[in-house]
Amino acid sequence: MKKEAMELPSFSSILLLLLCAFTLAEVESVYFPGIYQSSLKKNGKTVKPKIPYKSQYFPQVLDHFTFQPKSYKIFYQKYLINSQYWHKGAPIFVYTGNEGDIDWFAANTGFMLDIAPKFHALLVFIEHRFYGESMPFGKHSYRSAKTLGYLNSQQALADYAVLIRSLKHNLSSEASPVVVFGGSYGGMLAAWFRLKYPHIAIGALASSAPILQFDDITPWSSFYDAVSQDYKDASLNCYEVIKGSWAELNSISANDEGLAEISRHFRACKQVHSINSARDWLWEAFVYTAMVNYPTEANFLMPLPAYPVEEMCKIIDGSSPQSTKLSRAFAAASLYYNYSQTEKCFKLEDETDEHGLSGWNWQACTEMVMPMVVTNESMFPPSSFSYKENAEDCKKQFGVAPRPHWITTEFGGTMIEQVLKRFGSNIIFSNGLQDPWSRGSVLKNISSSIVALVAEKGAHHTDLRSATRKDPDWLVNQRKQEVEIIQKWIADYIQDMKQE
Amino acid sequence: MKKEAMELPSFSSILLLLLCAFTLAEVESVYFPGIYQSSLKKNGKTVKPKIPYKSQYFPQVLDHFTFQPKSYKIFYQKYLINSQYWHKGAPIFVYTGNEGDIDWFAANTGFMLDIAPKFHALLVFIEHRFYGESMPFGKHSYRSAKTLGYLNSQQALADYAVLIRSLKHNLSSEASPVVVFGGSYGGMLAAWFRLKYPHIAIGALASSAPILQFDDITPWSSFYDAVSQDYKDASLNCYEVIKGSWAELNSISANDEGLAEISRHFRACKQVHSINSARDWLWEAFVYTAMVNYPTEANFLMPLPAYPVEEMCKIIDGSSPQSTKLSRAFAAASLYYNYSQTEKCFKLEDETDEHGLSGWNWQACTEMVMPMVVTNESMFPPSSFSYKENAEDCKKQFGVAPRPHWITTEFGGTMIEQVLKRFGSNIIFSNGLQDPWSRGSVLKNISSSIVALVAEKGAHHTDLRSATRKDPDWLVNQRKQEVEIIQKWIADYIQDMKQE
Repeated sequence: MKKEAMELPSFSSILLLLLCAFTLAEVESVYFPGIYQSSLKKNGKTVKPKIPYKSQYFPQVLDHFTFQPKSYKIFYQKYLINSQYWHKGAPIFVYTGNEGDIDWFAANTGFMLDIAPKFHALLVFIEHRFYGESMPFGKHSYRSAKTLGYLNSQQALADYAVLIRSLKHNLSSEASPVVVFGGSYGGMLAAWFRLKYPHIAIGALASSAPILQFDDITPWSSFYDAVSQDYKDASLNCYEVIKGSWAELNSISANDEGLAEISRHFRACKQVHSINSARDWLWEAFVYTAMVNYPTEANFLMPLPAYPVEEMCKIIDGSSPQSTKLSRAFAAASLYYNYSQTEKCFKLEDETDEHGLSGWNWQACTEMVMPMVVTNESMFPPSSFSYKENAEDCKKQFGVAPRPHWITTEFGGTMIEQVLKRFGSNIIFSNGLQDPWSRGSVLKNISSSIVALVAEKGAHHTDLRSATRKDPDWLVNQRKQEVEIIQKWIADYIQDMKQE
Repeated sequence: MKKEAMELPSFSSILLLLLCAFTLAEVESVYFPGIYQSSLKKNGKTVKPKIPYKSQYFPQVLDHFTFQPKSYKIFYQKYLINSQYWHKGAPIFVYTGNEGDIDWFAANTGFMLDIAPKFHALLVFIEHRFYGESMPFGKHSYRSAKTLGYLNSQQALADYAVLIRSLKHNLSSEASPVVVFGGSYGGMLAAWFRLKYPHIAIGALASSAPILQFDDITPWSSFYDAVSQDYKDASLNCYEVIKGSWAELNSISANDEGLAEISRHFRACKQVHSINSARDWLWEAFVYTAMVNYPTEANFLMPLPAYPVEEMCKIIDGSSPQSTKLSRAFAAASLYYNYSQTEKCFKLEDETDEHGLSGWNWQACTEMVMPMVVTNESMFPPSSFSYKENAEDCKKQFGVAPRPHWITTEFGGTMIEQVLKRFGSNIIFSNGLQDPWSRGSVLKNISSSIVALVAEKGAHHTDLRSATRKDPDWLVNQRKQEVEIIQKWIADYIQDMKQE
């Protein structure tokens, strides 16, 4: 067995992909230009403009936390705005952008648009610095740690604070209550924004926000255990077939002809250069599908049926027992990559970054150190995590070492129930238990107003997606609960302001 | 009338002095080396070592909020520690150091030492970066905005978070509840620390913390109105004499022989170079004395009697009506500079910085922009404030412009009662109404656990000083209340931890 075959895909690349797993639901009704459109075209869809967001650019300060001369540099931060339902004084709903083009996140957060009329809300989606068009150093932004150094969550939160305050001032609407929304890393930012800037946001809906995926707060194995559990719940045989497929893959790769055989086996458009490509291809399909194990048919980059994990397992369970585990795993993974039956071959080594997500590698190598391991209980090949090795790898890649305990120093997380029981208010942590990220999120009510909404059948920020006619009752109810809670925050705010 | 004579001393220099007005009470029982000791010697006191604080130095990160290569630079941050009353698991009381040598603040926060035995508390006083010995760039730390750029409140708070977390880890006492204490700017830091780092501190005692002295939250005239009110309350004649003295000073300075005459009049050791020196000398005496209008005899750099404002006014009211207003104002100010009757002449232009406070000029010119004006109602010559002129002055001095609304963006302040009514907990804002800084602080209860303790007869963080036998009942009671509230925080914390 080649050593190469035992290495996991780097966690940062997995995280990069995983954290960005937004579904492209309802694409027909949303118009987005640029990069995002190109990914839509790839799927052969016709994009019709219907809900326009106006792009704006805000002159933002490079470094909020020093006063060095170079900290005063201005860059232009993109944000999207929709004021069609708004009137002055009504609420402002802000999406705290995460690690990619803001257009993409706006397209996948139809919930805000769905509820805007009820609240007469202004909708604002702010792009995270160093993503999309919001590049502080233009095309040189990713050049080195000297430029990337300014890419982190605290600077992003400060950007949001400055931008929101300025926007309210310019709209002469200082009294409008602001509610922040976010999913995944954006959900982490929304929750942290409410905690750090309560004077700017009256509440936060943090969907699928793994704010506890740091240090030892959440068991390091939980993410891959959760993925495995999704498959085990669908079928024990399915779990066992996938679990057994990796050894078969490795034994093929041990042959001299291994790469050619694997390429044939995986219907690769071009012969692969490394066995890792095939393994990552499978791995990502299983992880992604667990994350987007939605209750309805959905279109996430590639379209998928309702409960796609069950569908994958049906493929495995329905295959001939004579076929190899690897071929059955391949067939299941093909559902993810080719449900639309349009692909003649697979681009196993095609690395595209259509949504501009690559900055996450930097964040994962500096502040966002989320230790993960794969144990024998999982259906993936075992893997360990070492702070030391991680630091060495990151140092090699970027020239600087991670600060692996900084996030919990800055934002907390340890004993969160005790800490926030008597502190803070107005946060919804919503999660779907199908989503492996839910294990690192808040799943229990902390106080009367810091609450957890947990959907057993939900996946990665299902609630933030546009409503569809096929939504199951629990999802309709979850969104209804969210609306009622937000209404309560706003009513409290209005009442408090009257008592001035 | 010369134009020169109408200019106020720069607010930053006034603020620098005002914010640092700690009393040197109980010096006989406290040992401090270095700079502080030299100022004690100046007053001819004998300093006997009694309560030792051990000096420690913590390797601190230069810049917590970027990951640029240079942000990783380590400097040594000083902190004082006293563990004589402590046992593992018991509370840790941390003083969040402000703009000067930490020894000096430790000497003037005897309250923490007084209550340590009752709580079996560990005492820690952390020096603020860029003050005292905690110089990130050694003797070059103040060289320019390139080095000073790292001096600000957010970096200081992050320093405290990192240091406390590390200290607890090294003491194997992660479960010890931490309570932060601070006075003046240190009190602002204590309150903000609880708000931003609730996972690290369970509560904060913020004494005389003018967190509302920004933007338009507090009327810009309030500070000098409050000083004037102190004198008016003592005697209307006193207020009027001081108010009238400035014109007399100006008319003397209009003479060719003005500087010589002023120097004689003010018993200057050397002839003054500017009329401003005399005016600042008077001005500072009146402002300082209002701040330290303590109910007991106290020793603040120069010793003063109980209720020194009243004593000053007795001097004015008791002077011959034939004497000029200026000479009566001078006689009153002399109480401040020479209550001990040891000065044969006054050093009107002697600028010393015994407590290492000069970094405040930088802070006041970047983030800590506290607009103040003097109106006709005040006993001081009228003065205006302009953001534009302030920015120009600061730019001239340091090469960078202030960010005058940044503090309220980062920490809030506007509508604080509404914002914190349903957010946060466990902060005591203590104030004495004699202290003009009280006008920019929180003077009303915000919630059941964010409370205001207001002492009508109290001055600048009276409560933080060591108890003395002469303390009036209200002061004894105020401190008792503070102890009871802190006991409640700790009891709640212990109870919450049990429910884990």
